[in-house]
Amino acid sequence: MKAQVLNSYDDDLKAGEWLSFDDVADPRIGKSSDVIVRIGGAGVCRTDLHIIEGVWRPHMDPAGNALLPLIMGHENAGWIEEIGKEVEGLKVGDPVIVHPKISGGTCLACRRGMDMHAPGKFPGLDCNGGYAQYLCTSERNIVKLPKTLAPKEVAPYSDAGLTAYRAVKKATRHLLPGEACVVIGAGGLGHIGIQCLKAMCAADVIVVDKSDGSLALAGKMGADKLVKADGNEVEAVLQLTDGAGAEAVIDFVGEKGTTSKGLAMTRSGGSYYVVGYGEDIRIPTVDMVISERNIIGNLVGTWAELVELMALADRGLVNLATVEYRLADANRALHDLNAGKIHGRAVLIP
Amino acid sequence: MKAQVLNSYDDDLKAGEWLSFDDVADPRIGKSSDVIVRIGGAGVCRTDLHIIEGVWRPHMDPAGNALLPLIMGHENAGWIEEIGKEVEGLKVGDPVIVHPKISGGTCLACRRGMDMHAPGKFPGLDCNGGYAQYLCTSERNIVKLPKTLAPKEVAPYSDAGLTAYRAVKKATRHLLPGEACVVIGAGGLGHIGIQCLKAMCAADVIVVDKSDGSLALAGKMGADKLVKADGNEVEAVLQLTDGAGAEAVIDFVGEKGTTSKGLAMTRSGGSYYVVGYGEDIRIPTVDMVISERNIIGNLVGTWAELVELMALADRGLVNLATVEYRLADANRALHDLNAGKIHGRAVLIP
Amino acid sequence: MKAQVLNSYDDDLKAGEWLSFDDVADPRIGKSSDVIVRIGGAGVCRTDLHIIEGVWRPHMDPAGNALLPLIMGHENAGWIEEIGKEVEGLKVGDPVIVHPKISGGTCLACRRGMDMHAPGKFPGLDCNGGYAQYLCTSERNIVKLPKTLAPKEVAPYSDAGLTAYRAVKKATRHLLPGEACVVIGAGGLGHIGIQCLKAMCAADVIVVDKSDGSLALAGKMGADKLVKADGNEVEAVLQLTDGAGAEAVIDFVGEKGTTSKGLAMTRSGGSYYVVGYGEDIRIPTVDMVISERNIIGNLVGTWAELVELMALADRGLVNLATVEYRLADANRALHDLNAGKIHGRAVLIP
Amino acid sequence: MKAQVLNSYDDDLKAGEWLSFDDVADPRIGKSSDVIVRIGGAGVCRTDLHIIEGVWRPHMDPAGNALLPLIMGHENAGWIEEIGKEVEGLKVGDPVIVHPKISGGTCLACRRGMDMHAPGKFPGLDCNGGYAQYLCTSERNIVKLPKTLAPKEVAPYSDAGLTAYRAVKKATRHLLPGEACVVIGAGGLGHIGIQCLKAMCAADVIVVDKSDGSLALAGKMGADKLVKADGNEVEAVLQLTDGAGAEAVIDFVGEKGTTSKGLAMTRSGGSYYVVGYGEDIRIPTVDMVISERNIIGNLVGTWAELVELMALADRGLVNLATVEYRLADANRALHDLNAGKIHGRAVLIP
Repeated sequence: MKAQVLNSYDDDLKAGEWLSFDDVADPRIGKSSDVIVRIGGAGVCRTDLHIIEGVWRPHMDPAGNALLPLIMGHENAGWIEEIGKEVEGLKVGDPVIVHPKISGGTCLACRRGMDMHAPGKFPGLDCNGGYAQYLCTSERNIVKLPKTLAPKEVAPYSDAGLTAYRAVKKATRHLLPGEACVVIGAGGLGHIGIQCLKAMCAADVIVVDKSDGSLALAGKMGADKLVKADGNEVEAVLQLTDGAGAEAVIDFVGEKGTTSKGLAMTRSGGSYYVVGYGEDIRIPTVDMVISERNIIGNLVGTWAELVELMALADRGLVNLATVEYRLADANRALHDLNAGKIHGRAVLIP
Repeated sequence: MKAQVLNSYDDDLKAGEWLSFDDVADPRIGKSSDVIVRIGGAGVCRTDLHIIEGVWRPHMDPAGNALLPLIMGHENAGWIEEIGKEVEGLKVGDPVIVHPKISGGTCLACRRGMDMHAPGKFPGLDCNGGYAQYLCTSERNIVKLPKTLAPKEVAPYSDAGLTAYRAVKKATRHLLPGEACVVIGAGGLGHIGIQCLKAMCAADVIVVDKSDGSLALAGKMGADKLVKADGNEVEAVLQLTDGAGAEAVIDFVGEKGTTSKGLAMTRSGGSYYVVGYGEDIRIPTVDMVISERNIIGNLVGTWAELVELMALADRGLVNLATVEYRLADANRALHDLNAGKIHGRAVLIP
Repeated sequence: MKAQVLNSYDDDLKAGEWLSFDDVADPRIGKSSDVIVRIGGAGVCRTDLHIIEGVWRPHMDPAGNALLPLIMGHENAGWIEEIGKEVEGLKVGDPVIVHPKISGGTCLACRRGMDMHAPGKFPGLDCNGGYAQYLCTSERNIVKLPKTLAPKEVAPYSDAGLTAYRAVKKATRHLLPGEACVVIGAGGLGHIGIQCLKAMCAADVIVVDKSDGSLALAGKMGADKLVKADGNEVEAVLQLTDGAGAEAVIDFVGEKGTTSKGLAMTRSGGSYYVVGYGEDIRIPTVDMVISERNIIGNLVGTWAELVELMALADRGLVNLATVEYRLADANRALHDLNAGKIHGRAVLIP
Repeated sequence: MKAQVLNSYDDDLKAGEWLSFDDVADPRIGKSSDVIVRIGGAGVCRTDLHIIEGVWRPHMDPAGNALLPLIMGHENAGWIEEIGKEVEGLKVGDPVIVHPKISGGTCLACRRGMDMHAPGKFPGLDCNGGYAQYLCTSERNIVKLPKTLAPKEVAPYSDAGLTAYRAVKKATRHLLPGEACVVIGAGGLGHIGIQCLKAMCAADVIVVDKSDGSLALAGKMGADKLVKADGNEVEAVLQLTDGAGAEAVIDFVGEKGTTSKGLAMTRSGGSYYVVGYGEDIRIPTVDMVISERNIIGNLVGTWAELVELMALADRGLVNLATVEYRLADANRALHDLNAGKIHGRAVLIP
């Protein structure tokens, strides 16, 4: 099959052709529960740039270049191409979206539904992913798509969307009418998060972003109040919340000072949700005690949560703005992403 | 002051003048935390008819007529007229809605926020209520109204609305996208419940009612699916839920067979919420075990929940259809209610 | 292999030899995830008597005798004898306990950890079980035993114990110090439930039973207060709980009037847990509303909950009184159970 | 009355007589809900030393010495001496323990049961406390003692104990059998926390402390495993928890590196509870995301939680080691505390 292959890291993100468009061996069914998906769409994510520049090397590839050559692509959707001999309930041609984490299904985390906490591979990061014609995954990763949703339109939900959904879901389990939720960052994840919040609770959604364009988009997505991140955003949020802050703050940025600002926007007894990452959180213990706040980490969601997110998409309650590129043009898509030229999420299509 | 007074029960609900429009003594501040409210609106409720016909006599007035004469009216809103000498944060003229249960504030139920489980009076049922110019209550019962809401427009929220809200809130704490919630009965409470559901979760709302008019109203309120209660409503709901039933069923009727039908519409592991009442629930223990369903009783909400409901109303997320009658015309309002002539909720105004 | 086989129902439970001790074909690995267990202990349960007398026929065998011949036995433990070719983490000889429900692992219920709500077989009830030398099950049903626990000592935990544990666990998630939990029935499930309660919360445990012997046993298990079920047990419980009833009532009987009595012992806002079954629950809707009680159904626990229960057993926090019979003597064990001669749980051993 | 009065701060904690034993005016009933308590015991807390050395000056006394003279003492118990004219359910002579925070009872936090999040005074910190013969408080702060408990034996529960209880309670709501809870610091709060944990859940309790004496005490309190804080405590805890860490870590120290060590002991998906304070928490956002951990702040508990803690003490499930000093000897008690000479909690008695 054809695939876009990363053969060497590029620390400075300079080279024109990070990936080479090669003929590689087709993936093959190994276990009786394996499934091969013909890729209909593969989301292009900032994490892909981080992989190229070697940010993940210490975690994923500590010995050096053992991981390369690697087919990236961890946000995948398509159609069932082939199934292992004990797979039930799936048939060739079914449109599907692929949960990003391969989990075994037998550990305690899996058995409690927390599959993303199980040990296992993450195709596109530590084994071959979906920047290709075909992907080998497990039946455990497959969510069948309703007829309303085409693979290339939903691929980015499988990781970016699912991460936003999980954090939002945690917040909506405690947010009540009259309470407020601050969303920091109305970009790729944030704009999905805003839509999920509006669908799943009645709290006031206050969006903080430094870009007027993103704020305008947030308004269209249903945000109740918009705050420009101009240096006075903490004061602005406090003013909108009776001086006390919001019951929930979901930080989709996690760098350039948003962590301390986000915590300052969080009310006593409230929760600050970490989704975006980059800088360190730093807070005096005495402040945590006096205010009794919570800091909540957020990983990608569970398989069941991907089903829930697809239910939202199926009903039109969340929508995703995508920009299509041919698989052959993966390098161009990545350069456009790096240059900040993409509005919405880029998706590679066959 | 002028008040509408019940002087004797009328078992058959026949007499033309159930209440007499009398001059009675003004209520007076007793405790330092007492508050007198000038009534701006008093909701007329089916429970009032039940009081008149003596249904509540065994509970509220076991010795005979010791409770009479009684000023009914348990859904009250208006303006602060006078405050006890230790009341803080309220001033004469503030528009307010009145939580229906007088609670002491010191018992464990109150201290955990469950004020409606505390022992205490319920004005309009076991002591004088709001079918009058003034009502004496406690600062603990007062919720200040936002500027958007006038007392006569919101009075029925204080009991009917609050009961619907509490049941819905419990369900929304577990309902997830892709799951379903059945609402049985789209009348006074039901149409508030439907709006709360749509505001507070993303589950599919399936409304079951025998009246085409009520179903049409439910559709306008945002119901996702409408089911005519024509004898086949259980099968219809099962068909809409993959044969398995809904994760939550909220029964605002509670009589004429809705309890067994409601339970039959409830999925394994799901919850059936009892709000309306009339008949007995009857179910084999073995069915409860095999299906692992829950049957959840629902009382009126807490003071904090009335604040939450007012937040929904303030944002236009729930709306109430009211029909105004002068206080002097209370008997006409009650007869119209008894005759099924009122669409929405009747409210007595000064 | 040798197995005890049910060849015909016996409506009156009279025949001397309900089961015949036959040579039958050994079970064989079918799917790559299958596991064959050499039985070390198979619990003898009242449900087995109900199967023999045909109580379950309408559910399990509606067409007549299609289910027979059947090897009963749904509480099984033993050692791994053989594993399917894709089973990981298990090896021949491992001591194990077997979760009673075969679940597929791919449905939404399974993926959320609620495996016992998945469709699937229940060996010993609707396919061959563990009254035999070997049992074919799935890797999904296997919980490895810690070294402290021998299969024959723990077999009854797999169903009876797991059911008691799940109900108790739900109650302990809300029970607080100073609150009370009533346990109705200190028999096979009840005495496990009492131990779990004492280990997992600090609520006062009040045990209600009609047998002095069972009450004495309950006292040894740590029950705080003992109430003889002599007709005045409701009053006795109310007296022990300030006239208000208990926050949780767990009914391990579910017949002969315990449901109405159990509900009468349940405090406003509290929960009545149905575990035992037999009679109908009957309660006026108005009582459910005024008291805002909950009625909670309880099925057998999840696989993860069986792991939790084994952790309790491993630490000596729950103990099980067992009486051993040879597999060849299954009929005698069943007759002794039917005659009320067994104290603790009977277990068939090889 | 006689009282121990702080007249000036002592930055270096050197002066022999920090407090002067003066005759001051008796406190008097102000509001109709006020209560005067005759002090039977006043706990001596490290916070008192911090007040003396001026640590709290920036928060409580920013303008300089406006707060002084101050009667310290925020852990109080005694007997009702006088009640306001609308106080019900209390009578002169009742033995009581005093919740430390004065709350109004009408704000949303109070009405939801979260009274310690309400605005209000904290006697002993920002207004006169219990190092005296009498204390004026509110009926809202009074918890009646069961007959088993004497005021001087329980006074330290009102703040130190209540703080430990609240953190432990949060953890026990999610801890399951087979899971682990690490307690860092087996001192004043820690040894109460260990007892609460053992009473309220079945998780393994692993205690980490640098003192052999404290570890020995922890063992007597029921700790399952003891870890010497000798620099290798993180590795030791990981070894005890299959390399993965504990589901809950409760840090009663919060300084000298325990925050980063405590977080390193916390399992993916687990929670780190901050109780003790001193240093900053510092953690990369990416670590919070990958591990999906939670950092939970903890304030003193609610009034209802003080009732729960007294229920534990009444049943002998928690016990407190106290050392008595006469009120006249307050300075000696404080110096002994500062010198590390007190084992258990010092209590001033009349």
